[in-house]
Amino acid sequence: MTDKVRLYEVGPRDGLQNEKEVVPTDVKVRLIELLAEAGLTHIEATSFVSPKWVPQMGDNSDVMAALPKREGVTYPVLTPNLRGLEAALDAGATEVAIFGAASESFSRKNINCSIEESLDRFAPVAELACENGVALRGYVSCVLGCPYEGDIAPEAVAVMSERLLAMGCYEVSLGDTIGVGTPKSMADMLEVVLDRIPVEKIALHCHDTYGQALANILTGLERGVRVVDSSVAGLGGCPYAKGASGNVATEDVLYMLNGMGFETGVDLDKLVKAAWYIADHLGRPPASKVATAMGKTD
Amino acid sequence: MTDKVRLYEVGPRDGLQNEKEVVPTDVKVRLIELLAEAGLTHIEATSFVSPKWVPQMGDNSDVMAALPKREGVTYPVLTPNLRGLEAALDAGATEVAIFGAASESFSRKNINCSIEESLDRFAPVAELACENGVALRGYVSCVLGCPYEGDIAPEAVAVMSERLLAMGCYEVSLGDTIGVGTPKSMADMLEVVLDRIPVEKIALHCHDTYGQALANILTGLERGVRVVDSSVAGLGGCPYAKGASGNVATEDVLYMLNGMGFETGVDLDKLVKAAWYIADHLGRPPASKVATAMGKTD
Repeated sequence: MTDKVRLYEVGPRDGLQNEKEVVPTDVKVRLIELLAEAGLTHIEATSFVSPKWVPQMGDNSDVMAALPKREGVTYPVLTPNLRGLEAALDAGATEVAIFGAASESFSRKNINCSIEESLDRFAPVAELACENGVALRGYVSCVLGCPYEGDIAPEAVAVMSERLLAMGCYEVSLGDTIGVGTPKSMADMLEVVLDRIPVEKIALHCHDTYGQALANILTGLERGVRVVDSSVAGLGGCPYAKGASGNVATEDVLYMLNGMGFETGVDLDKLVKAAWYIADHLGRPPASKVATAMGKTD
Repeated sequence: MTDKVRLYEVGPRDGLQNEKEVVPTDVKVRLIELLAEAGLTHIEATSFVSPKWVPQMGDNSDVMAALPKREGVTYPVLTPNLRGLEAALDAGATEVAIFGAASESFSRKNINCSIEESLDRFAPVAELACENGVALRGYVSCVLGCPYEGDIAPEAVAVMSERLLAMGCYEVSLGDTIGVGTPKSMADMLEVVLDRIPVEKIALHCHDTYGQALANILTGLERGVRVVDSSVAGLGGCPYAKGASGNVATEDVLYMLNGMGFETGVDLDKLVKAAWYIADHLGRPPASKVATAMGKTD
């Protein structure tokens, strides 16, 4: 077991795509640069989905073009289908992600097809990505609960994860999309998943809707998980609206990891600077305890 | 190991004493009633300290007089010295608490005396409380860090806890007063403390300044701790901690405990109702993820 944890930053994509406001391209690019300067090596930059569905990511190619190449830093992007992948490849993406669900109902509502159909759709994406030497990541959403179905069987999470790994994903990120999990449901799910999949292939993606994200991540760390998705400033949901589903804040996760002696390569002060940069742009304080407690660090 | 957890509610005291506004007596009493209706059995009601120092608790006797007696519910109060205890006894208190620190500097700043002097001051309070058949609880603050000294030796926490238990306290509540702890510092501290003190005598009192409270409480639960202090709506804060983030919210703790299958006897919907009641009075949303996500429950 290594004592290194890789933070996978999703703020510029999963965070900003849930903002009502379309954030200007130069602000996105500056945010991503600040995150890279803080030491993050995996920064999900944008999404190649139809701008009809996600107008917030309509500038995907412009964002990719503006990002400076940095040794050791990758900018993964979401690619739901072949058209998205082709556009991502044209834009120079070196890592892409496909996203499925462990819940049949959520799959239909979120990506308009059954789980089986989603896998059929991902197959040529995965194939073309692998042919192009592009790293492929998989997401499984609703792993600890679904807004339509309630509880989700850990078995469904394990099966979906295996299918995505079999397609060539180098890891799968297990998402508590609506933040309803607790340490017990996390432990129960991981028990089934880790019985079948090496822990090195598993990342956790926890939303903090009910304040449980850090406790759930701790539960994963205790079981050997060493990759954590998070979002600078807790971007990704309105903290004052019912049904809000913000990602866990990267700085809150990093504070815990630092305290626990895990190496991440990420500088907390610089990360908090990035949190305040985007918070100031959005005109509200960061939705993170650490950024609030530390205040502006420059 | 039982699977029951006792929630010790500190919102009306530790929470409201840190509000700038002095909350009217009838609002405090209504809040406490709502908390009791939700099933909480230990509700710290007020503090018998000088109103010169804590004007927010200047109505202590009025609050105590207005609280209806309820089978199985106690309303502990803080009593820093003999004068406070005498006033508390006059007001009919059946449980009182004394509060020391594991940090010499914090002790001097917070209660104006050294740790040794604080113990000398507590001794007659403890004696008189025991003579009167009043339950006695002890607090130890700064157990995971001090704003003046930084790290605190777990040994200092253990010694202070033993001294308070020896005076007759039925349990000691270990406070991460400035919320700087992480699961590792919590585990390290508990390892030393639980080596010398039965776990049944230990409660945890975590502030959420850096978002670590639930993860730290989970660490305590995993080691057998079964009493957790918390504050409805996340009321409170520490005047010495930057960022002004308060106690861990009772409803966030309860959500985790419910998910983990612990029995508490507390109803989440009713608790969230109490959170919104006081939040509405204070004119701001509850500082808790659960109350925010659930919205108003009536």
